[in-house]
Amino acid sequence: MKLIRFGTEGNEKIGIQLENKRIDVSAFGEDYDEKFFETNGLDRLKDWLKVNEATCTTVDDSVRLGSPIGRPSKLVCVGLNYAKHAEETGAKVPTEPVLFFKSTTAIVGPNDNVMIPKNSLKTDWEVELAVVIGKKASYVSLEDADDYIAGYLLHNDVSERAFQIEKEGQWCKGKGCDTFAPLGPFLATKDEIKDPNNLELWLEVNGKRLQHSSTSDFIFNVQEVVSYISQFMTLLPGDVISTGTPFGVGLGFKPPMYLKAGDVMRLGIEGLGVSEQNVVAYN
Amino acid sequence: MKLIRFGTEGNEKIGIQLENKRIDVSAFGEDYDEKFFETNGLDRLKDWLKVNEATCTTVDDSVRLGSPIGRPSKLVCVGLNYAKHAEETGAKVPTEPVLFFKSTTAIVGPNDNVMIPKNSLKTDWEVELAVVIGKKASYVSLEDADDYIAGYLLHNDVSERAFQIEKEGQWCKGKGCDTFAPLGPFLATKDEIKDPNNLELWLEVNGKRLQHSSTSDFIFNVQEVVSYISQFMTLLPGDVISTGTPFGVGLGFKPPMYLKAGDVMRLGIEGLGVSEQNVVAYN
Repeated sequence: MKLIRFGTEGNEKIGIQLENKRIDVSAFGEDYDEKFFETNGLDRLKDWLKVNEATCTTVDDSVRLGSPIGRPSKLVCVGLNYAKHAEETGAKVPTEPVLFFKSTTAIVGPNDNVMIPKNSLKTDWEVELAVVIGKKASYVSLEDADDYIAGYLLHNDVSERAFQIEKEGQWCKGKGCDTFAPLGPFLATKDEIKDPNNLELWLEVNGKRLQHSSTSDFIFNVQEVVSYISQFMTLLPGDVISTGTPFGVGLGFKPPMYLKAGDVMRLGIEGLGVSEQNVVAYN
Repeated sequence: MKLIRFGTEGNEKIGIQLENKRIDVSAFGEDYDEKFFETNGLDRLKDWLKVNEATCTTVDDSVRLGSPIGRPSKLVCVGLNYAKHAEETGAKVPTEPVLFFKSTTAIVGPNDNVMIPKNSLKTDWEVELAVVIGKKASYVSLEDADDYIAGYLLHNDVSERAFQIEKEGQWCKGKGCDTFAPLGPFLATKDEIKDPNNLELWLEVNGKRLQHSSTSDFIFNVQEVVSYISQFMTLLPGDVISTGTPFGVGLGFKPPMYLKAGDVMRLGIEGLGVSEQNVVAYN
């Protein structure tokens, strides 16, 4: 299944992306959130659809998409998880996953505007494969990691490099600004993605392809990342893990190249659709 | 008012700590969470109490206390916010606040056990003053910062130093382990605390006082911290900001001194009560 959420910001309803149309499944009566995943919602929804799909109304393509999932308890990210990207940022290749958090207030829909924060000069893009956790995960072994995954989605890990790197301390200042985490267009359940560690991904700014790689270049693959993070904290159903970005971010250009109001980012991952964000100034 | 939550983990009810007893105010029908603070819950509860306090039942002192607030969207911490503590960790005094996140899955009640994670050798204590946000805060000026504060509570920012410092990358690996954020005993509303920047705070391990300082030694005071964080992310009602710990953590001893199963931590802040945690091994 491909799960979507649609409607105005903060009032999203749940739906399903079918091959040629989107349908409204809000009559199922739940949101795609912690409780849904925790209570075997994916299986229950599948059963519900067998009976009810025919009577579900179509959602017009003009309707805004929200994040495919309700607000997670956390959005954990892996940094420097592609060797060539680590190199372009001037960092050494890590020997174990580098982790950081994005504020969940940064989450927006896949095609919402991305806002350059006040006092920002270095807002940058990062196409990433994100993993959605399906059940409570603590001290999960590498072998069992797949059992804890509900599905996958596309994430633009928008980053302000001066806030992230040039200010004192940790990266979170440049990672959690409002609108810095467009998620979607849809959450593809695990069965839809044959091998998450072999997916093409790309990002364009104003039509120019700047990132283009494959998750086969991961330093730490999806299962390793899930298992690793669960050694340090409990992952809850609906939590999101973003697995890092490949070569081609603005910071890596010589000279570096950053976003400005009026730019358009377009990004995609094989099997997980395409998102597009207009860049706007703080208002 | 002093807000408490009591009962078994995950099933906490809301209450009020009065001078000599605790009362059950669950008939108010809400939790102390984002929605409560967002919808002027403190004022509404105060009005409700005028009518209903006399009929509220007493909560026995033997009943477990939970975190005084429901799960926040984020738990943002300030690092190295007392000069003498920065020095003991070998860090330089920061010129602007150092920020990091703790996973909200780390939150437990004030007197719950603190569990040493698997493979941990360096679990450490940190008494801290935490601030609870009362309304949505974005780009808040220093002058207005107080308006965005709902109240204050005691926090033990338990930290695994090897996970935090010796592993690749960011601090979050050693900050968000399960049980690493005992909060409470109560949330004191803003009016109860005359000056949050002049409160005595202390922590004892097995009866020995190891931290003892005053928030008057802050490098960045409460209002500066709230205003600063709001430049980088939107703070939501019910979000928690922990303001850093003073001199006297285990890492600072020569040689360093860490927690082991059987140890007891006891900590307090002037006007915010006392909490006590038994340290247990991972089970």
